[in-house]
Amino acid sequence: MIFRELWDEIAPIGRDPETGGYLRYAWTEPELELRSWFRSQALARGLTLEEDGNGNIFAWWGDPSAGDAVLTGSHFDSVPHGGAYDGPLGIVTALLAIDDLRARGKTPSRPIGIAAFAEEEGSRFGLACLGSRLLTGAVTPERALALTDRDGHTLAESLLKSGHDPATLGPRPELLGRIGCFVELHVEQGRALIEGECPVGVASAIWPHGRWRLDFTGEGNHAGTTLMSDRHDPMLTFAFTVLAANKEARLRDAHATIGRVEVAPNATNAIPREVRAWLDARAGESEVVDALVAAVTAKAHERATRDGTRVAVTPESVSGATEFDVVLRDRIAALLDDAPILPTGAGHDAGVLSGHVPTAMLFVRNPTGISHSPAESATDADCEAGVVSLSDVLADLAC
Amino acid sequence: MIFRELWDEIAPIGRDPETGGYLRYAWTEPELELRSWFRSQALARGLTLEEDGNGNIFAWWGDPSAGDAVLTGSHFDSVPHGGAYDGPLGIVTALLAIDDLRARGKTPSRPIGIAAFAEEEGSRFGLACLGSRLLTGAVTPERALALTDRDGHTLAESLLKSGHDPATLGPRPELLGRIGCFVELHVEQGRALIEGECPVGVASAIWPHGRWRLDFTGEGNHAGTTLMSDRHDPMLTFAFTVLAANKEARLRDAHATIGRVEVAPNATNAIPREVRAWLDARAGESEVVDALVAAVTAKAHERATRDGTRVAVTPESVSGATEFDVVLRDRIAALLDDAPILPTGAGHDAGVLSGHVPTAMLFVRNPTGISHSPAESATDADCEAGVVSLSDVLADLAC
Repeated sequence: MIFRELWDEIAPIGRDPETGGYLRYAWTEPELELRSWFRSQALARGLTLEEDGNGNIFAWWGDPSAGDAVLTGSHFDSVPHGGAYDGPLGIVTALLAIDDLRARGKTPSRPIGIAAFAEEEGSRFGLACLGSRLLTGAVTPERALALTDRDGHTLAESLLKSGHDPATLGPRPELLGRIGCFVELHVEQGRALIEGECPVGVASAIWPHGRWRLDFTGEGNHAGTTLMSDRHDPMLTFAFTVLAANKEARLRDAHATIGRVEVAPNATNAIPREVRAWLDARAGESEVVDALVAAVTAKAHERATRDGTRVAVTPESVSGATEFDVVLRDRIAALLDDAPILPTGAGHDAGVLSGHVPTAMLFVRNPTGISHSPAESATDADCEAGVVSLSDVLADLAC
Repeated sequence: MIFRELWDEIAPIGRDPETGGYLRYAWTEPELELRSWFRSQALARGLTLEEDGNGNIFAWWGDPSAGDAVLTGSHFDSVPHGGAYDGPLGIVTALLAIDDLRARGKTPSRPIGIAAFAEEEGSRFGLACLGSRLLTGAVTPERALALTDRDGHTLAESLLKSGHDPATLGPRPELLGRIGCFVELHVEQGRALIEGECPVGVASAIWPHGRWRLDFTGEGNHAGTTLMSDRHDPMLTFAFTVLAANKEARLRDAHATIGRVEVAPNATNAIPREVRAWLDARAGESEVVDALVAAVTAKAHERATRDGTRVAVTPESVSGATEFDVVLRDRIAALLDDAPILPTGAGHDAGVLSGHVPTAMLFVRNPTGISHSPAESATDADCEAGVVSLSDVLADLAC
């Protein structure tokens, strides 16, 4: 098995030569090209393709209608200028794991499937795990179709433009009922595996997390002529809120990030009339996330009173704690020579599916711990260890 | 004279129906349309057109080669979602002032010119008063041609695209030598005329002012999985600097604004790797501006050390104090029934020209004091008073 060979086939797709990061947004050219590549790889392996009408693609080894399938896979879409591994690693290793099982002469007694989920990052339409949420009914087609990207295009328009029928969106209980369990392999996004001996870990849980949109509104005016005392500058309220979010997260052992900002009119010589930002908040317990967001909101309102501005806080997606299936997790960890078990602060399609089928995750070591950045990485040796681990898991569960 | 009639001809050009503000960037469609409109208005009045190769257009009544001309006029370009009056008011009132002089049977003994200067706001290429700076040699063609807009297009490319020859950029000492004085009419951008009886004021000085680019660099990473203690988040350093700029400006009776921000990658679930922002700083004295920028820079560096980030501060344009010609100012103020004399924090082409020819400015009352915003306004009656004042000034200086 040569990981690098298959990996290099997709390495140039959607890569920005300037940053080295990836721009693989859902239903845009690079992501559509990756889907086509996945389809041709699946067909070359004699797998059966199935699309669920939500942008998710399934490639089956064995008869999917038999049910009780063992599903693996991940997603192709990236955050803006994201790394190469987050998502695609779970699909490429799955293809190679099937090659490996066949090379070992294994025949599955349960169908094995590889999923490529759509818009996992939510980088284009703002709602993470959109494909798996639609599949499971966690979001309605009506809400999904009305979501807009940064250029104001709705998902409905974008689907039409890329040749997909918006009318096919919606839950697929029959398909979901045929899945016996889901095991997603993913690059580790923290530093938890760096110190140890094991290149692969097993997930215990996903932290409760969510996104809140913060709208700071003030009064646009001239930067040169407006007295400081006459201003209603929403940039001040925003800046204070950034620092408050950082402080409140540290006090609670939680994570808070404000990484996306849009300013109107965004001119050097104009006091903004509006600053829109997004708060990403996560913690080990839902109560902590709630308290964190409440504290940040209170601080923002306090400061808005002082600045003569207004703040509105709107939850865009909030996910409670995900505890992965303990039986499946322990079985996999034992199989992989007592692989380390670790929680993660990152959301995944596995988190959405875990509410419906027994679900587990494998993490491949990341030597820097950096993710959502061009600096994200994993060694080829560790990725190959990931393939072998996934292959072992599929053999154990399905063969 | 019906101000509203002429005004309404240009009102729809470049107007965003959503914000009500204007998007009239230099060398883009709406601004080119305004130039064409200006040319046809000038020709309809029998004026002689002259272009200076820098994007500035001059319309002459009388023989411009006679020299010692009285020049008026302003600019068409806007800040993003700016008001209708900042710039265009000085050109429309100039056209009407010529109509008024003719209606009064006046004949100029000196040439009277109306200028439409290019890229006064610097909203597209970042350098304010670009047209007048090129004309006077305050910026070299080499530097100007290399300036880039937000999409990364150079001025050179943009000129070519709109059918202008980049090779013609450069100082025009002969043209400048033919200008005896410059009087720019502009909407007032503060509240100084609101309380009084006079709809028109006369400028005394332009505050020293400038723009500094602030580059905050950190380490892009995953918003969910990166421990707060492992972060190098440039958004924190940026936010602290916004608050520091506000505080330092208030301490010095100066103005500081951070109104433009660009974040990379600007994703909800990613710690930014870079935040770029612009500081607009102004005060009554150059020393105060210098001290303000030094203090903000020091605070930014202090915070960067704490955040594990880096900051670079680059001056993009810095203008010293402009004292307008006292003799011209007093002559105009006396002519206009002792019109109030006031300083301004806003930069203008008049500030650039004042280093070369006696220069003055007229300000038309702004009932809200708001500028660089769709809320910028002036009543029709006050604009007509502006026309009469400008007509009186031109009659006094040139007839």
